[in-house]
Amino acid sequence: MGCIGYGSGDALVRTAFRGLSAFPLTPIRDDAVDEGAFAGLVERLAAAGVDSITALGSTGSYAYLSPAERARVTRLAVGHAAGIPVFAGVSALRTSQVLAYAEQAQEAGAAGLLLAPMRYQPLSDDEVFTLFEDLTRHASVPVILYDNPATTGFSFTTELYARIAALPGIGSIKIPGVPADPGKAGKRVAEIRAVVPAHVTIGVSGDAFAAAGLSAGCDAWYSVIGGTVPVAAQRIVRALDEGEPERARAESDRLAPLWDLFASCGGSLRVVAAMAEELGLVQRPCLPAPLQGLGEEQRERLRAVMAALGLDR
Amino acid sequence: MGCIGYGSGDALVRTAFRGLSAFPLTPIRDDAVDEGAFAGLVERLAAAGVDSITALGSTGSYAYLSPAERARVTRLAVGHAAGIPVFAGVSALRTSQVLAYAEQAQEAGAAGLLLAPMRYQPLSDDEVFTLFEDLTRHASVPVILYDNPATTGFSFTTELYARIAALPGIGSIKIPGVPADPGKAGKRVAEIRAVVPAHVTIGVSGDAFAAAGLSAGCDAWYSVIGGTVPVAAQRIVRALDEGEPERARAESDRLAPLWDLFASCGGSLRVVAAMAEELGLVQRPCLPAPLQGLGEEQRERLRAVMAALGLDR
Repeated sequence: MGCIGYGSGDALVRTAFRGLSAFPLTPIRDDAVDEGAFAGLVERLAAAGVDSITALGSTGSYAYLSPAERARVTRLAVGHAAGIPVFAGVSALRTSQVLAYAEQAQEAGAAGLLLAPMRYQPLSDDEVFTLFEDLTRHASVPVILYDNPATTGFSFTTELYARIAALPGIGSIKIPGVPADPGKAGKRVAEIRAVVPAHVTIGVSGDAFAAAGLSAGCDAWYSVIGGTVPVAAQRIVRALDEGEPERARAESDRLAPLWDLFASCGGSLRVVAAMAEELGLVQRPCLPAPLQGLGEEQRERLRAVMAALGLDR
Repeated sequence: MGCIGYGSGDALVRTAFRGLSAFPLTPIRDDAVDEGAFAGLVERLAAAGVDSITALGSTGSYAYLSPAERARVTRLAVGHAAGIPVFAGVSALRTSQVLAYAEQAQEAGAAGLLLAPMRYQPLSDDEVFTLFEDLTRHASVPVILYDNPATTGFSFTTELYARIAALPGIGSIKIPGVPADPGKAGKRVAEIRAVVPAHVTIGVSGDAFAAAGLSAGCDAWYSVIGGTVPVAAQRIVRALDEGEPERARAESDRLAPLWDLFASCGGSLRVVAAMAEELGLVQRPCLPAPLQGLGEEQRERLRAVMAALGLDR
């Protein structure tokens, strides 16, 4: 698992970008990164034995952090990951900022770079392609194409996946989800698989879609809950590793009350942040202002869900 | 015109945030602010006698600039504005960054602060309200509520306008446009006017809507073309000042080929940037990567439009 580098053979890249990639929060306390709490979250993931750790994903609030904070977070993640590969988000609005983030992430020991087409002005497909071209040309570790229309407002076409995945240096594509229907999910993953090189893995995100996505042929799960309650996420991945997709689906269905909370609370971040607060892993509040945590009523519902699912310890 | 400050009486604020506010580009050359070209743009606006200059609007690419670049741009704008009030964009994803931008804008001499609810994670109305509350509490010059759903992805309700406009320190609301139909435009502006304090001005944006918005009772035009071809924008404003809404409408209709280009080229920024390039006011390319300028075909159309409208000199 430790050896990564697209210079050294496709198989190795495929090994790196598969299985459970856990996305830890970056807890904010008094408008600064709570370094102790962050290190604790990473150690928790290392102890659980996740396949990789993606620091500075959307769940890691990368977009809200300063360059110095991002450098420090990547360094802490690598330092506390006990050898598990760490990927780092490098997205920014300006190409030169992306390249600077990539440079510092690599210096900090990141084994992969996650790039979403953050936008203020709407971006064209050519602008997004050129951004990925510029990053892969400069980077010395593989790049994960990060497709998250809910946060970036940019929607990839399958054709654009294909153009970007053909660039040397792309290691994986993080897709936003798959249809719930197994047949349609399989068709969607096969459609992407057909147009990207074999060494580029496909990773599902949107935790509610994980079991469906992995069953449909995704190689990885870029996981929000994996960053805070890794054992619950691993149950789904292990069931599939052991050839039991029905068990994976049952594990996912069991967590449906959590997926419902994600949908009703404006996305997964606020819910997972509250979970980490409830578990005592981070101080409350832990999100960067102006983001606010869950209100009391939502938090009460979350507590009940956590207790019912055994996620409260 | 020069005296602004919401501590010193409502009438003064109303005076400041009315008429033509021109939004200059921030030209980028070799990934740095082209300071000479920017100073030239500001001097052009001062010479034309616009009512105010908004540096670091969306047209000024504020979202793509570093803190140091933003500070420098505000300083240059104030230094070259010949006493015309300068407003400065202070938007950022994190509240503490907004407050830091406000601080440096005020130190640089900004007479007003423009705040849009930039977002990465979707924002709730309460989060946006609290952001404005935090800024107005810290700022010593008035704040312009900047509503631009095309760039921020956040849509204000009229109710949220009302809540925010009631905060001490709000000077103006920059609305994204009005309906083309005069009756509906008048109704929309009256609807906003009815729920915001009298000292808060309403400014229209979306250049194609300027004549309709001003005719419908808007106090100001926050203008993209005003930042590059101020005389064309002033013709519309002057016609209204002279009580001739029909002439204003005719002036606007005359510019319809330009509004069409805005619509077909992914927004006003790329078109106005190309206009400034064609006029020799800035070097080509002048936008921050990954943003790309107009392609050759679009540029050819723009040249024809500029020549037909007399905007090529």
